[in-house]
Amino acid sequence: MTLQQAPSGTPRQKEYRILRDADLRAYLAGIPALAARLGGSPDGWVITEVGDGNLNLVFIVRGGEAGLAVKQALPYVRLVGESWPLPLSRSHYEYLALTHQARLAPGLVPAVFHQDEALALVAMELLEPHIILRRGLVSGTRYPHFVDHITTFMARTLFLSSDLAVAAAQKKEGIAAFCGNHALCKITEDLIFTEPYCQAEQNRWTSPWLDATAASFREDLELHVAISRLKLKFLSRPEALIHGDLHTGSIMVTDSDTRVIDPEFAFYGPIGFDVGAILANLVMSCLASAGHERAPGERRSFEAWVLETTEQVWTEFARKFVGLWRAGSAGDAYPAALFEGPAGQARLEAERQAYMGRLFRDTVGFAAAKIIRRILGLAHNIDFELIDDPKLRATCEARSLRLARSMMLDASSFPTIGAVTKAASELRDWQPDFSR
Amino acid sequence: MTLQQAPSGTPRQKEYRILRDADLRAYLAGIPALAARLGGSPDGWVITEVGDGNLNLVFIVRGGEAGLAVKQALPYVRLVGESWPLPLSRSHYEYLALTHQARLAPGLVPAVFHQDEALALVAMELLEPHIILRRGLVSGTRYPHFVDHITTFMARTLFLSSDLAVAAAQKKEGIAAFCGNHALCKITEDLIFTEPYCQAEQNRWTSPWLDATAASFREDLELHVAISRLKLKFLSRPEALIHGDLHTGSIMVTDSDTRVIDPEFAFYGPIGFDVGAILANLVMSCLASAGHERAPGERRSFEAWVLETTEQVWTEFARKFVGLWRAGSAGDAYPAALFEGPAGQARLEAERQAYMGRLFRDTVGFAAAKIIRRILGLAHNIDFELIDDPKLRATCEARSLRLARSMMLDASSFPTIGAVTKAASELRDWQPDFSR
Repeated sequence: MTLQQAPSGTPRQKEYRILRDADLRAYLAGIPALAARLGGSPDGWVITEVGDGNLNLVFIVRGGEAGLAVKQALPYVRLVGESWPLPLSRSHYEYLALTHQARLAPGLVPAVFHQDEALALVAMELLEPHIILRRGLVSGTRYPHFVDHITTFMARTLFLSSDLAVAAAQKKEGIAAFCGNHALCKITEDLIFTEPYCQAEQNRWTSPWLDATAASFREDLELHVAISRLKLKFLSRPEALIHGDLHTGSIMVTDSDTRVIDPEFAFYGPIGFDVGAILANLVMSCLASAGHERAPGERRSFEAWVLETTEQVWTEFARKFVGLWRAGSAGDAYPAALFEGPAGQARLEAERQAYMGRLFRDTVGFAAAKIIRRILGLAHNIDFELIDDPKLRATCEARSLRLARSMMLDASSFPTIGAVTKAASELRDWQPDFSR
Repeated sequence: MTLQQAPSGTPRQKEYRILRDADLRAYLAGIPALAARLGGSPDGWVITEVGDGNLNLVFIVRGGEAGLAVKQALPYVRLVGESWPLPLSRSHYEYLALTHQARLAPGLVPAVFHQDEALALVAMELLEPHIILRRGLVSGTRYPHFVDHITTFMARTLFLSSDLAVAAAQKKEGIAAFCGNHALCKITEDLIFTEPYCQAEQNRWTSPWLDATAASFREDLELHVAISRLKLKFLSRPEALIHGDLHTGSIMVTDSDTRVIDPEFAFYGPIGFDVGAILANLVMSCLASAGHERAPGERRSFEAWVLETTEQVWTEFARKFVGLWRAGSAGDAYPAALFEGPAGQARLEAERQAYMGRLFRDTVGFAAAKIIRRILGLAHNIDFELIDDPKLRATCEARSLRLARSMMLDASSFPTIGAVTKAASELRDWQPDFSR
């Protein structure tokens, strides 16, 4: 827990406490910039707690003139309760990440108006009429600007915090600044890279249909080696400042606007982890879609849009990432002095493509890990959870698991994003044999 | 620069100053533990400055009862002068690394008796009658315990600070603790991973014989890609706390004792960088050996011993590293829950071998980089420098460069350490064509 340091010798002026309605009202009224932004009398402000995530309190505050979103970390995991403590310092790292992302990718994160370290609280722009992208996708809505926005967000935040863009000394300062966020990393290490592959109390899946599949994932030693290699990359490759939880539930959208929220898992990690998260969640959205049909085939064209979007996310991300690199890399990697003249430039361009090839392989692996954890691990997603018929849900999940398993084990079969979407498309009508 | 924090409001009690004879004598006399260790009257202590390294002052202090080595960092690079400033904080990191290594690999580093952050000073055990290993190798001396000692040092310091042995939170704390040592990392980034491959004022080589070779290294774009990939690993893969400068000039030896000194370049980096440094320096020792012969063939059997030692350094390191891993890994990588039962254990054992194979490829690349920088870059080594006849020196250097170039470009030709020593052996009598 990071606290504002009070002058030594005097008692701390602020201690953490959970803010409830009246307390929050008084707190906000006491901060002139926030009170002015809300407008009108504090008595008239309407405060609603809306947090539907797993970790925090989220309040929407509506004043006479404008609204605010106020997020306060709890000293435990909200989903589980006080038995699972979690440091308040995550609010500090979320604030650091939000301000960093706002600099690198302007307009693609909520504006932050106020931060209070002691209260583990951040007050930010109320995003209206945005909804969580995942909800939009479940309802079959298409977002024509999503590809452009999310690939700009990823290319800029990832490239511009990497060794391609930042001098080593500055990057090491960044790494050090986020090392303290290890409790959040640990959640990822356990829930994504470990528990789905072994007996763990928190695991759940659509039983009994997926019982045999879940057991096979717990017994498949090739898969255990593959996930362990990915975990080692997550542990030991601070390539860039990653969001760390970049699924479709961490993105708010309208027809024309896209905002990435909730970067409390941010740290310097492998670039492919963020990109893989987006791809995985789009693939799951596509393969869950059949479960939301009211009439057979009703959502086929939406699914085609999702797969097209999946392809474009990678190709546009890669195009923008390489474009930033071509425009000039101020980082210490690939020094310009080694690639001078037309021949040097041509060789460097070939190496950029090779770099993206290596990054794509990482990305496919991390995407597979993200799919598996949502079906066999603790935290599931509404793409599948909102499918009422459990056998139909299990069918959609089994298709996703089959794809994820081959993505993780057989990277050479997925040299391009087209190979991923083709495999997803072919699984659309595959019927798992639940009689095993 | 890291200074001891004085209580706020009072002036700092100590400021950095360069200690000369009288000042150092008074300083040591004022520290009871050191004065007692030295013994006798301070007036009788004999102080000699012996630093022959590139960066620091090193004093040998002999008292009535015992001696001390006192190392003080200068605020600039000693080799170059005040025009190349270098932070005093490197002494802080050296102390951190020395104490860490002493815990992990007892008896293989000098004992530290005293540290003074403000003066950037460390007082340690005087190693007698040790000499610098590189000097011993130049004179053709064999060290029968060297393999055992250095492989224990590397296996223990590297394995026991890696994700295989340390929980992620603790490892991240370690990474953060060394992030501030970036000025020393930058020296490596420039002198090893960049300058030998381009026009740089500081580069030098045995001219005119190596002019054409140096030019070819500056023009070889495949080599530039390969060294850039290695540099990116150095920048972005904190696999373990590495020594960072583990050449044969950083090791002091007797017939029966081995101590690793001077870890001021320590930081969390790629494991292969340390292992590659040892292998590279042994290979250079072997290929320089012909230059030190007084009669043809006189040193053949010494050279055979060096190559045998080179092989054993890798095989014993690998054996001990894997042995520590088998004995139990408390780290978060490769969780035990994923490799239960005899089948799980067998699969994990195969993965350990695969891990060592990947590490060996890294090691070969870093070893090649270490050889090239010593022949085409700023800092040369006495293995070659003490060869009086410049054409003979150039011949030995050309053989080493030829080996290093193929190690860096063609990793698949060096699947085992035996392939490296075989290639070195075959180059022993190769005569470069200096007429090009």
